[in-house]
Amino acid sequence: MIQRKRILSGMRPTGRLHLGNLHGALDNWVQLQKQYECFFFVADWHALTTDYASSSRIRQNIWNMILDWLSVGLDPQQCTFFIQSDIKEHAELSLLLGMITPLPWLERNPTYKEHLQQMDQKDLSTYGFLGYPVLQAADIIMYKANGVPVGKDQLLHVEFTREIARRFNFIYQREVFPIPDPLLTEVPVLPGLDGRKMSKSYGNCIYITESAESISEKIAKMMTDPQRVRRTDRGNPELSPVFAYHRLYSPPEEVADVAEGCRTARIGCVECKKRLTQNVLARLGPIREKRLRLEGQPHVVREILEAGREVAGREAGRTMVEVREAIGLSMNPECRVEERKN
Amino acid sequence: MIQRKRILSGMRPTGRLHLGNLHGALDNWVQLQKQYECFFFVADWHALTTDYASSSRIRQNIWNMILDWLSVGLDPQQCTFFIQSDIKEHAELSLLLGMITPLPWLERNPTYKEHLQQMDQKDLSTYGFLGYPVLQAADIIMYKANGVPVGKDQLLHVEFTREIARRFNFIYQREVFPIPDPLLTEVPVLPGLDGRKMSKSYGNCIYITESAESISEKIAKMMTDPQRVRRTDRGNPELSPVFAYHRLYSPPEEVADVAEGCRTARIGCVECKKRLTQNVLARLGPIREKRLRLEGQPHVVREILEAGREVAGREAGRTMVEVREAIGLSMNPECRVEERKN
Ligand code: SF4
Ligand code: SF4
Repeated sequence: MIQRKRILSGMRPTGRLHLGNLHGALDNWVQLQKQYECFFFVADWHALTTDYASSSRIRQNIWNMILDWLSVGLDPQQCTFFIQSDIKEHAELSLLLGMITPLPWLERNPTYKEHLQQMDQKDLSTYGFLGYPVLQAADIIMYKANGVPVGKDQLLHVEFTREIARRFNFIYQREVFPIPDPLLTEVPVLPGLDGRKMSKSYGNCIYITESAESISEKIAKMMTDPQRVRRTDRGNPELSPVFAYHRLYSPPEEVADVAEGCRTARIGCVECKKRLTQNVLARLGPIREKRLRLEGQPHVVREILEAGREVAGREAGRTMVEVREAIGLSMNPECRVEERKN
Repeated sequence: MIQRKRILSGMRPTGRLHLGNLHGALDNWVQLQKQYECFFFVADWHALTTDYASSSRIRQNIWNMILDWLSVGLDPQQCTFFIQSDIKEHAELSLLLGMITPLPWLERNPTYKEHLQQMDQKDLSTYGFLGYPVLQAADIIMYKANGVPVGKDQLLHVEFTREIARRFNFIYQREVFPIPDPLLTEVPVLPGLDGRKMSKSYGNCIYITESAESISEKIAKMMTDPQRVRRTDRGNPELSPVFAYHRLYSPPEEVADVAEGCRTARIGCVECKKRLTQNVLARLGPIREKRLRLEGQPHVVREILEAGREVAGREAGRTMVEVREAIGLSMNPECRVEERKN
């Protein structure tokens, strides 16, 4: 029997997920779980690297995110998912990896520098924020993942993880960790309601499990080609966020028809949006139904989380035995007894 | 009933302990355990902050150190002792404290700068070494210690711990951690065989549980007042390491007698050393006997460690419930259920 390759990926607990999350990550995860042995985790400790001072909603956000994961089709029969802070071994491995991490590797990290500049309203000059690649490396190699799904902009993170894994194996002279490969994923870019990147902080999101009314209203107000002012103006669908959604939600013939209708002013934006709304609701309706069902079955969700925690905890526990053994740390009292002779 | 104040102190696992350790720390610990509720721990993770690349003897060192602790009179009926890496909560709390630790607090740490210069033969520019005050703070506040026994040179470390504890309480708006006080301890300075500071790396140590023969030989070769070359020369005991030992090991009348005899050349160094040897062996003999007894009873030591681990683990577990609650992190599936409403 061929062992399936193992994949690991995590997501910060931002609460209810939006369509950007669905197309940027979750759709991909749902595909991955069919081909690989997948571990997906809620990166709640990572959320603290930037939001340590506004952490009061983390628990609620975790719960909402897990419900969304299940609603879009992550299947606990096919993959394992768990909450990072439930597996204390991540903190232990992160501490141990920190001991062998040269500071310059972290300080030179271009993402680190960039973030520091972007988020200058928060105080990010913390020890935890500097070290977040170490925690991330621990998350990944803990499960001896062979692959990590990433976008192009995250390639450097995986590179850091690979270097730390190599360094550990080298210093302690054992091949404890396989070197994980980045799994480059092309994801469609879905603009927000106003044409910018979809983001909670911009307030331009459609949420995966919003009500049909709310989604319809939002689409009705969505930005269109700004040059198409009157019904009789010809439009350019490439400049219209609405068309970007058609590409993802409408069947190919309809996408072609809408594009042509927009360019020739055969259809108006109102009709165009109505057709989009129908297709979006057709896709999201079942997801929302599943979510509502799950909200009524908290014990089911609880059991799924408990099962995931057990599987992840067992794997993490196994890895840490090897790690402690390689470093030479105390194992348990039984082992120590053999060391009683000087 | 008045609750006894709680004290916490740790020691890196350097293996068999020498007289510098005995007079610099252990003697004090043995006194402290009578007045306070004491937690003493083997700081094995701390050892990795400087010796990550030469960790293979850690386990053996831990065992030897624990045997020495018991031999000098640390009493598991009176105090709790445990191995840091057995209590994974230290890693978790350290991770969480790191999130709120401003980098400049660590970078400006004068001990950090000094160490970097002193130990330039090792590569200490690591993330773990920079963050060792964070781990140390976690060790201390985990047990809500009221006091930390320190020498003058470690006052700054306790100050860091106090600041982190205050910052945590402030950010999360709860008095989770009491602010620990430094417990300044005057310790006698005991020189090594060659007059320098006693240190393993200088090879100038007498070990607490060395054999009588070995101790006698070492004292016989010990440095004396360098000006006293011939038997008839008068000596200055203040310039003789041998006399520093008399002060600690001989009764007051004998100390006075030796000083006078040295100054007047009434006694020679050979006799002076013989008298010292007798007194040293009288004190260390029972310690060595206890050590030999314990070496034959590994199961007893094992049970003591197990009991300590349980007590420390229970305390740490309690603290972490409060910490996670204060930050807002997930507790366990039961708690999360209440959060299911958006
Ligand atoms: S017709 Fe559709 S694609 Fe064209 S501008 Fe209007 S909303 Fe956008
Ligand atoms: S007599 Fe004793 S104290 Fe004086 S120099 Fe000799 S060894 Fe030292």
